[in-house]
Amino acid sequence: MNACDKTLASGPGHTTGADDRPVTPVSDSVAPASANPGGRSVEARLLLRLLARQGAPPLEFVLWTGERVSTGATEPVARVSIADRATLLGILVDPQVRFGDAYSDGRITIEGDLVRMLEAVYRASLGSPRQPSTLRRVLDLLHRPRINSLAGSRDNIHHHYDIGNAFYSLWLGNTMAYTCAYYPTPSATLDEAQMAKMHHVCRKLRLNAGESVVEAGCGWGTLALHMARHYGVRVRAFNISHEQIVYARERAKREGLASLVEYVEDDYRSISGRYDAFVSIGMLEHVGPDNYPTLGRVAHQSLGSRGRGLIHSIGCNLPRPLNPWIEKRIFPGAYPPSLGEMMRIFEPWGLSVLDVENLRLHYAQTLRHWLDLYEAARDRVCEMFDERFVRMWRLYLSGSIAAFTTGSLQLFQVLFAPHDSNDVAWTREHLYSR
Amino acid sequence: MNACDKTLASGPGHTTGADDRPVTPVSDSVAPASANPGGRSVEARLLLRLLARQGAPPLEFVLWTGERVSTGATEPVARVSIADRATLLGILVDPQVRFGDAYSDGRITIEGDLVRMLEAVYRASLGSPRQPSTLRRVLDLLHRPRINSLAGSRDNIHHHYDIGNAFYSLWLGNTMAYTCAYYPTPSATLDEAQMAKMHHVCRKLRLNAGESVVEAGCGWGTLALHMARHYGVRVRAFNISHEQIVYARERAKREGLASLVEYVEDDYRSISGRYDAFVSIGMLEHVGPDNYPTLGRVAHQSLGSRGRGLIHSIGCNLPRPLNPWIEKRIFPGAYPPSLGEMMRIFEPWGLSVLDVENLRLHYAQTLRHWLDLYEAARDRVCEMFDERFVRMWRLYLSGSIAAFTTGSLQLFQVLFAPHDSNDVAWTREHLYSR
Repeated sequence: MNACDKTLASGPGHTTGADDRPVTPVSDSVAPASANPGGRSVEARLLLRLLARQGAPPLEFVLWTGERVSTGATEPVARVSIADRATLLGILVDPQVRFGDAYSDGRITIEGDLVRMLEAVYRASLGSPRQPSTLRRVLDLLHRPRINSLAGSRDNIHHHYDIGNAFYSLWLGNTMAYTCAYYPTPSATLDEAQMAKMHHVCRKLRLNAGESVVEAGCGWGTLALHMARHYGVRVRAFNISHEQIVYARERAKREGLASLVEYVEDDYRSISGRYDAFVSIGMLEHVGPDNYPTLGRVAHQSLGSRGRGLIHSIGCNLPRPLNPWIEKRIFPGAYPPSLGEMMRIFEPWGLSVLDVENLRLHYAQTLRHWLDLYEAARDRVCEMFDERFVRMWRLYLSGSIAAFTTGSLQLFQVLFAPHDSNDVAWTREHLYSR
Repeated sequence: MNACDKTLASGPGHTTGADDRPVTPVSDSVAPASANPGGRSVEARLLLRLLARQGAPPLEFVLWTGERVSTGATEPVARVSIADRATLLGILVDPQVRFGDAYSDGRITIEGDLVRMLEAVYRASLGSPRQPSTLRRVLDLLHRPRINSLAGSRDNIHHHYDIGNAFYSLWLGNTMAYTCAYYPTPSATLDEAQMAKMHHVCRKLRLNAGESVVEAGCGWGTLALHMARHYGVRVRAFNISHEQIVYARERAKREGLASLVEYVEDDYRSISGRYDAFVSIGMLEHVGPDNYPTLGRVAHQSLGSRGRGLIHSIGCNLPRPLNPWIEKRIFPGAYPPSLGEMMRIFEPWGLSVLDVENLRLHYAQTLRHWLDLYEAARDRVCEMFDERFVRMWRLYLSGSIAAFTTGSLQLFQVLFAPHDSNDVAWTREHLYSR
């Protein structure tokens, strides 16, 4: 499916992400398969077994034959249509990856709200005490995150961030910040919240005019410019995405900040020199746990026996791999650590954790705003890429909202300092004084 | 030494904790041993080797023969007199434990400020990249923290907390809170800061009138009464220290809060039932890492799928045993975990960490206030116990100040919630609104 097939793909409202068909209340047409167990097909029985293993999410499935399958436990939040037997068999073998692929291809369509549906799936699976199946464990091994060696990182980052600045500028808002925003109140706009996030980070770091900052993973360069403009600091900002670095350099020149901000197209492992502050927003997800002590060494050496550091990252409540479809199709090499795993950055160097803030619900809100903008720009995205891409990224954004609202993902901001530095804030009140 | 020997033990000022002799500027009489290396005794050479292994703290030692020994690197911050050969030999074998014992017995005396001296020792050893010696490792094995089984915990807690309420009331201030206070400003008094700490904890937990709270390890019951009085909640507070429970029950009755606060003389592992909040201030130090998942299970079961929890504990930047003298003489069974180790409480149950605040410098300030009150009450302490006890607790309080000011110890307040609860504060601003 390469054309921009609007019949199939455009949603009934740009926030729901559902497929283009009349959304009838799903409850009034449900005929649970359990009503006639004797007449259930083999495929239906296999699907029911899979659903039980996933904690029985409250969904209704409609097979290509018209047969309806549901766990029957509660009122289904959405109806999932599966186009053919091959699609179902694929899902039975590898539900997480094949579901995502089939949704992207249009072989699976959803009636109802995509985010609510995915929330139901996450809630069911988080509430399910089951161990992963042997098959799941084998598949997890096959889907091991790609290695973040120097070359591997370059490939992985290229896959995601070099899709094109024009694409990202459609839905990231004016700041081009592609990380969790900070909403002082839930009613803040996306741009307000991204600005507030940058101020929040700078206040945590207690930046003073004339100080030096090194940034590991600078995206399109927004934070570095913000720090230079509002706090009068010099910034060296590292990134291995060529597209982003080119964009950032042009922006610094255009905004008259090129003398304060230097963008370096290189890996965080190449950072050298001494700085007053070390900051990394949304890069840790791409570092991989094996490299955490290395990242800690870079931060430690950047700060010496003074200074402040902050690492902001998606995380989890317990160690667990990223959803394998996201890892495979969207973010190769990505891994959201638990807070315990993150400590492998700090503990080998005795770095002192001063403050951890979990902004999980702020990321759900950020993603809602991104998804709204994305759906509003879907025709443009389809012209740039194709319908498959439109659906793939809709699933990724919707699934990410669901992951944050259900607590499947967290967002940790960790402030730290060298072990023997007493140059730390007495309280956190200064973050909230207006 | 059982008498209250004021000649030896009372300090020149009640905050210094130094021994009773004219404090001459230590620098003007220093004759570094290195000035005449050829004439150095065997004992002096062994002591120098030990000092080098400890990162060469800037101290001058005076042996029983009058021989002076110093690393000579920087101006000494204090002069340490060693009374006899046996004392030195003991220190060479097991510096940490034997130094503390010899100081308590008066076989070691200090000229200069005890806190500054201990800070110098901590700084030198933290800055020293050396691995612990084989001997140290063997001694650490011998000094393994006592096991915190149900019976073991009872013995360990009895050792420290059942010394006598009258003793603690001499120097803990009016609140009888024996944990880190929270100083909104550094100039707050001890009592103000302990009140502020309790409000800070209650605000983090977002307590509402009519809710129920379970407290694991309630000390003399101060926080439970505070919660009931100021937030209108019902509290069940657990503690295995008989002396403390008796004190707390009397207080609740006297203050007319016995209907809201129930003190239970039992182990945290006996907590059952469902509550809106779980709180534990200063108990984790006595739990032992092996029991962290059990403590997490207790918190998890207490909260179910909603509610809020807070654990407040002394910690470290990296896993490392407590100073063995403190563990042996003061706090049997105690262990201050790293933040990574603390995550073993939360991760097995998927509990979500919302907020971590490090209050290390607040504990140093709290301890300074305690030490001031303690020194002011030293004659009374000596009458209650003996001179050895006076010196032992002076060393413990002074060493604790030094551990917190140098970053050898941390203080972590960890706020958490069940994995799927969205009943969490949107930001932390409410903690700071007046």
